[in-house]
Amino acid sequence: MKLWDKGISIDKKIEQFTVGNDREIDMHIAIYDVMASRAHAKMLKHIGILSEEELFQLEKGLDVLAKQIERGTFTIEAQFEDVHSKIEFELTKTLGEVGKKIHTARSRNDQVLVALQLFYKENLKEIRSKTKTLFETLLDLAESHKESLLPGYTHLQVAMPSSFGLWFSAYAELLIDDVYMLNAALQTADQNPLGSAAGYGSSFPIDRELTTKELGFSTLKYNVVAAQMSRGKSERTISAALGSLCNTMSRFAMDICLYMSQNFGFVSFPDELTTGSSIMPHKKNPDVFELIRGKCNKIQALQTEMVLITNNLPSGYHRDYQLLKENIIAAIEDVKDLLDIFNYAIKQVDVKHIDLNDPKYLYLFTVDNMNTLVEQGMSFREAYQIIGKQVQDGTYKPDTSKQHSHVGSIGNLSLDKIKNKFPK
Amino acid sequence: MKLWDKGISIDKKIEQFTVGNDREIDMHIAIYDVMASRAHAKMLKHIGILSEEELFQLEKGLDVLAKQIERGTFTIEAQFEDVHSKIEFELTKTLGEVGKKIHTARSRNDQVLVALQLFYKENLKEIRSKTKTLFETLLDLAESHKESLLPGYTHLQVAMPSSFGLWFSAYAELLIDDVYMLNAALQTADQNPLGSAAGYGSSFPIDRELTTKELGFSTLKYNVVAAQMSRGKSERTISAALGSLCNTMSRFAMDICLYMSQNFGFVSFPDELTTGSSIMPHKKNPDVFELIRGKCNKIQALQTEMVLITNNLPSGYHRDYQLLKENIIAAIEDVKDLLDIFNYAIKQVDVKHIDLNDPKYLYLFTVDNMNTLVEQGMSFREAYQIIGKQVQDGTYKPDTSKQHSHVGSIGNLSLDKIKNKFPK
Amino acid sequence: MKLWDKGISIDKKIEQFTVGNDREIDMHIAIYDVMASRAHAKMLKHIGILSEEELFQLEKGLDVLAKQIERGTFTIEAQFEDVHSKIEFELTKTLGEVGKKIHTARSRNDQVLVALQLFYKENLKEIRSKTKTLFETLLDLAESHKESLLPGYTHLQVAMPSSFGLWFSAYAELLIDDVYMLNAALQTADQNPLGSAAGYGSSFPIDRELTTKELGFSTLKYNVVAAQMSRGKSERTISAALGSLCNTMSRFAMDICLYMSQNFGFVSFPDELTTGSSIMPHKKNPDVFELIRGKCNKIQALQTEMVLITNNLPSGYHRDYQLLKENIIAAIEDVKDLLDIFNYAIKQVDVKHIDLNDPKYLYLFTVDNMNTLVEQGMSFREAYQIIGKQVQDGTYKPDTSKQHSHVGSIGNLSLDKIKNKFPK
Amino acid sequence: MKLWDKGISIDKKIEQFTVGNDREIDMHIAIYDVMASRAHAKMLKHIGILSEEELFQLEKGLDVLAKQIERGTFTIEAQFEDVHSKIEFELTKTLGEVGKKIHTARSRNDQVLVALQLFYKENLKEIRSKTKTLFETLLDLAESHKESLLPGYTHLQVAMPSSFGLWFSAYAELLIDDVYMLNAALQTADQNPLGSAAGYGSSFPIDRELTTKELGFSTLKYNVVAAQMSRGKSERTISAALGSLCNTMSRFAMDICLYMSQNFGFVSFPDELTTGSSIMPHKKNPDVFELIRGKCNKIQALQTEMVLITNNLPSGYHRDYQLLKENIIAAIEDVKDLLDIFNYAIKQVDVKHIDLNDPKYLYLFTVDNMNTLVEQGMSFREAYQIIGKQVQDGTYKPDTSKQHSHVGSIGNLSLDKIKNKFPK
Repeated sequence: MKLWDKGISIDKKIEQFTVGNDREIDMHIAIYDVMASRAHAKMLKHIGILSEEELFQLEKGLDVLAKQIERGTFTIEAQFEDVHSKIEFELTKTLGEVGKKIHTARSRNDQVLVALQLFYKENLKEIRSKTKTLFETLLDLAESHKESLLPGYTHLQVAMPSSFGLWFSAYAELLIDDVYMLNAALQTADQNPLGSAAGYGSSFPIDRELTTKELGFSTLKYNVVAAQMSRGKSERTISAALGSLCNTMSRFAMDICLYMSQNFGFVSFPDELTTGSSIMPHKKNPDVFELIRGKCNKIQALQTEMVLITNNLPSGYHRDYQLLKENIIAAIEDVKDLLDIFNYAIKQVDVKHIDLNDPKYLYLFTVDNMNTLVEQGMSFREAYQIIGKQVQDGTYKPDTSKQHSHVGSIGNLSLDKIKNKFPK
Repeated sequence: MKLWDKGISIDKKIEQFTVGNDREIDMHIAIYDVMASRAHAKMLKHIGILSEEELFQLEKGLDVLAKQIERGTFTIEAQFEDVHSKIEFELTKTLGEVGKKIHTARSRNDQVLVALQLFYKENLKEIRSKTKTLFETLLDLAESHKESLLPGYTHLQVAMPSSFGLWFSAYAELLIDDVYMLNAALQTADQNPLGSAAGYGSSFPIDRELTTKELGFSTLKYNVVAAQMSRGKSERTISAALGSLCNTMSRFAMDICLYMSQNFGFVSFPDELTTGSSIMPHKKNPDVFELIRGKCNKIQALQTEMVLITNNLPSGYHRDYQLLKENIIAAIEDVKDLLDIFNYAIKQVDVKHIDLNDPKYLYLFTVDNMNTLVEQGMSFREAYQIIGKQVQDGTYKPDTSKQHSHVGSIGNLSLDKIKNKFPK
Repeated sequence: MKLWDKGISIDKKIEQFTVGNDREIDMHIAIYDVMASRAHAKMLKHIGILSEEELFQLEKGLDVLAKQIERGTFTIEAQFEDVHSKIEFELTKTLGEVGKKIHTARSRNDQVLVALQLFYKENLKEIRSKTKTLFETLLDLAESHKESLLPGYTHLQVAMPSSFGLWFSAYAELLIDDVYMLNAALQTADQNPLGSAAGYGSSFPIDRELTTKELGFSTLKYNVVAAQMSRGKSERTISAALGSLCNTMSRFAMDICLYMSQNFGFVSFPDELTTGSSIMPHKKNPDVFELIRGKCNKIQALQTEMVLITNNLPSGYHRDYQLLKENIIAAIEDVKDLLDIFNYAIKQVDVKHIDLNDPKYLYLFTVDNMNTLVEQGMSFREAYQIIGKQVQDGTYKPDTSKQHSHVGSIGNLSLDKIKNKFPK
Repeated sequence: MKLWDKGISIDKKIEQFTVGNDREIDMHIAIYDVMASRAHAKMLKHIGILSEEELFQLEKGLDVLAKQIERGTFTIEAQFEDVHSKIEFELTKTLGEVGKKIHTARSRNDQVLVALQLFYKENLKEIRSKTKTLFETLLDLAESHKESLLPGYTHLQVAMPSSFGLWFSAYAELLIDDVYMLNAALQTADQNPLGSAAGYGSSFPIDRELTTKELGFSTLKYNVVAAQMSRGKSERTISAALGSLCNTMSRFAMDICLYMSQNFGFVSFPDELTTGSSIMPHKKNPDVFELIRGKCNKIQALQTEMVLITNNLPSGYHRDYQLLKENIIAAIEDVKDLLDIFNYAIKQVDVKHIDLNDPKYLYLFTVDNMNTLVEQGMSFREAYQIIGKQVQDGTYKPDTSKQHSHVGSIGNLSLDKIKNKFPK
């Protein structure tokens, strides 16, 4: 006892250490455990392990819990180590022996797995839908601002003309790549692991296709060892997909923070989306976008965590897997908020008129001007030399009248085509 | 000059620094630059910038280069900084002014981009095909060894009966999840960026749909800024997909190394797949599988590199992107070798007969035995207590006759169903 | 409003988003903010900005808060966005105008910085001290078990004789390398940033050397921009050091989990350090060590997060930095627990007697036996051939009598020398 | 044979796979293998295994090889799998039986280990010395430009006055933190592993303290298992230290790239340090600094690779460790170049005069002006309101005369104090 600082006994410390904050985390998956338990019970009745009456009672008991969860009155008290023991306890308290029968032919391992897969599936769909909302917002903004020119940079040097229309729809189209990844993650999650028990299946003649159908999974993870090993694999894939989406948002937020700097001055936002300073009375800081950027960067680090926890572990369950839950669930919740907030905030963007006659933007049109000479029959090399000499002499005068007309260019954003690319 | 050790002048150092090993790396994408140049020329003819005769000459010139590349006689000498300048030089040397015209309406940026996308696309398909080969090998092994029992472990503790059939087909089924990711990466790569020029398009009326069709891309990256930003995005996605596949192979290799230990003794391999020791005459080491594991783990780190190089960079090209090429191309080549070698090696596995009567495996069947009691009408809790007491007393006698019959279990591997899940 | 699910208004969401869980996190640094405020006040008095009486009142006010923190009665209510505003509010509530004066010549930025540096410094010292405790435990175990032989493995293949003494003291000596890193992190943390204000210093004639001395820092981060940029740099270094220590613990835990497997059977632990299974009555699982391994692996991923949040950000404060706090503070608290629990648990290890006459360990002594022949005058190559032939023929008989006597070997663990290496 | 594309036989593929590019990599450590072999031979003579004459011959043979390496004529031909077999082959070819004796009482494992530790030690010292050169360059630049003002930013928003002196010396002082890490890595490398043989020591009575002294190591890694496990541990620590240094350079390069943008225009560089564009005649791109940034970011990813290769592997050698060499050696060579190039390039910086009367910088001095009011007796809050009202009304007129005098501020850079902090 005396060994331990702060008066916490070692046994308490070990208990806390092994339970961790599972109770808190498990609130996110409680409803899915109820759903999976219901499907499992139905299947047990189907194969003759439960009677019709027993099933009826279990369904009623599970209904009560589902309603508590929905209403926010469901809690996991300190005497339960996780949501699964709490639910089993409640069923047994209410229904007696029947409550205990629900655990027949399953193990804690596949019970957690199936609840997590259901949670992942549902949330990935929600994230895909919120991504589509942001995608559409950006296409709308592109349409509204398609005439507003913007300097285009390469190497952060003034390069060629761009536009707000091009800028907004670029990020829209990049979101499509992220949806490819989200869909891959969804396919990974959309496989029923229930029935794998502790990772080696069961000697009961369970009907895994029935629970698959009942729970709305597209297919099973057939092999029970593979089902068990999807712990870690799903989290790896999901964190890759979330990271991809966050990469797009983070880079967009970087552009916004830069463009809000007085040295660019391309966009601004209303006061409720910026913050002041306690010591500088003139400040209008882009905190919301900095936090979007930072949180997205944090989520991009998640995959390394998922990999490090599981890497080089031989097949078969290890307790280490319990640690995967906390940060993947937090990241999923964060990504939903990030999409909402980004969508809300970007709608309020104030696009500035940029004076392209400012001397620092003088050379934006050199390539267009060279191209005109080439179209008039001059060779590219000669045109390059002529314009180059004008630049050097200080005699260069930009002709800003050149139109860009090809698909995907300033003058032809092809927003409908981009819209049609969005995957189902 | 005197500032620098080893007698290398600073200018040379800076030149080496900026060129890096691009020449060597670019050999991998040379053929794709030729292909893309041909499509670009065809399009330039279509919009009237090249004459029919000029196109004919350029196609002939590109054919010559394609043959050199195929035969292995193509080289990038020290005076060229990359494959693109080399190819343009050759065309100009042979064809004069016509050779210079090929660069009209494109930039080095979209030229690299399109060559890389073609390289990625081709190689991802090859990787998917090699993954399928390994998948089928594993299903064959599962079929051959479906009767051979193996102890199943949880927490590395002897747990429940498993089988070689279950073990081999578990890794087969996990490969399907990896193919979901490969397909997402393929979708990302299968978009034509040509025509985005330096990232802001061109004032020439180019026909991007024509080059898209010509090069066999399924769609375009329409938005030219998005096309430019796919640099980094593609590499991020591909490295995630390769990492996923490597994660499966690495964990499989870990199992193999462990099962080859004298303390397990579950599998062995012929001498040409193991190595001896310079000081221990009895050693037979699993170096091939250790190197598979190590290389796969290395490739799992690649995504962090891809992300760190591009993260928080504002939109628009930055020279940093040049650094993405080296390790992603190396990883792609490595993954192809890893799949070949894994497939070759695993076919030669020698599956040992495991004596499940060995005292250390005594308790493998306790759950099966409890389930029998439950099926005979006893409650689960009572059955647990009875078998538990036998274990404690030392009177437990395993009954190994219990069959597992459900889908995905030892007795019903469902290999055909797994085979049918493999995505197209 | 209707846009948002779950009935939370967007403003509330944005407020939650920007505040995050700072209130909860800041409880860890509350006491350090009080300490730094006291030093700052003392300095303000010294340069004439506060009167003696004002200082006296502020010190009294800060004392009250310090006692609340110590007693656990200090709280940060929902109306405060962080600990700093709460403390200033309390001082102003109690002391009126004087309370407001404490913020003269400082900014929230250097206020957070100095509190964090003090927290890091204190905790790194505590971690170093707990590492020393574990180090000494391992040396004691090595001494106790120096005679107990253990098979030594290379490639997970039985290789040469080792011992429990060697095994325990190996991990002890590796901890020394971790302390080198901890000390580097400590040097990084042991620099006073107070006075850097918002990252560009102050026009008040503050005395930064006075606060440095007052707070017990070894030196200042002199340059105010550097002081500001130590945000992120400190966290990067500390996470590298924690990761190093966790790498050692994680690999040790892996050995333990493996050695507890029935296939090795080298060590066991009393029941309170293992857990059973809800479905397998015979299980005794090493959950504590699996969770140590998993948590240590998780902490090894932290540096990537710290780097990704700050990477490629230009100099000067960004709000992203707020996000560094949460997981670095959690990791520091976790590492202290991990060291306590590892130390507590390893003391209770039960070292098994291993029968080296078991056929699978037969070849452990081949190298020793060859060396004997070499010492008797035979060439190494000839000896290798003779023993190699015996192995092949099945006539090899191990002579286990050979002693290892050199420094650091089985027969001469040199524990005192290792003990003396532990850095101060 | 037909199984394999490209006509490479599987055996060749497996051979290539296991050898990898060790021959090329090993050229970096050849000289250290010679040094360690010489020390080992001297020790073998000391304990009576070699005669004086045999030692003399071995030393002569090793001298020949050392000279070849120095002159660049040493090669590792395709028949040798690494430098160690090549050196032993050469000695045996020249000296006959005596050549073979050098391998007595050592193993390939500790031979690689000691050569790597010597390589690391030497190179870390060189990196520390080059870091000091850059540190001094930056302090010189700070001194030269201490009067040149620069806008200071927070959140990328114009905030308070800074200076080039402050900017240059900030990065100088940050390098000190990196040296703390380099020194920790140096301590890790500065321990002799020779004598650990295959990781379990030797039954020969070797004198490890003699080789330690001979090779100039500060101490031994006493425990032979710990010595073996320093493989991976050293690489982890070194990559953390290199990553820390690269983090500083990368962020500095980001500032430079941003400050070279026309929208900032704070610095420029001579033509030989910038590059033009093939299509834009006006471009002057900061490629050198972009490549510094990119390469530094790439090196920051290295630690994840080192960790992933070794993580969760049980103690004892695994072949996976061979894969650690390639990228750590490449990173070490790169960091030396990066330091040289950064130092060379930054010396040629052209610091621009910045017109702080430009409207966008108008509010830089608000805090200074408020502080003046406070010093004149006004409360901070009142001063904030007065200046805030001026800002709102558009009547604010900056008073730029306020001096910053405290240690580490614009007016008192304390360069000597920073210089004195640089660790030995």
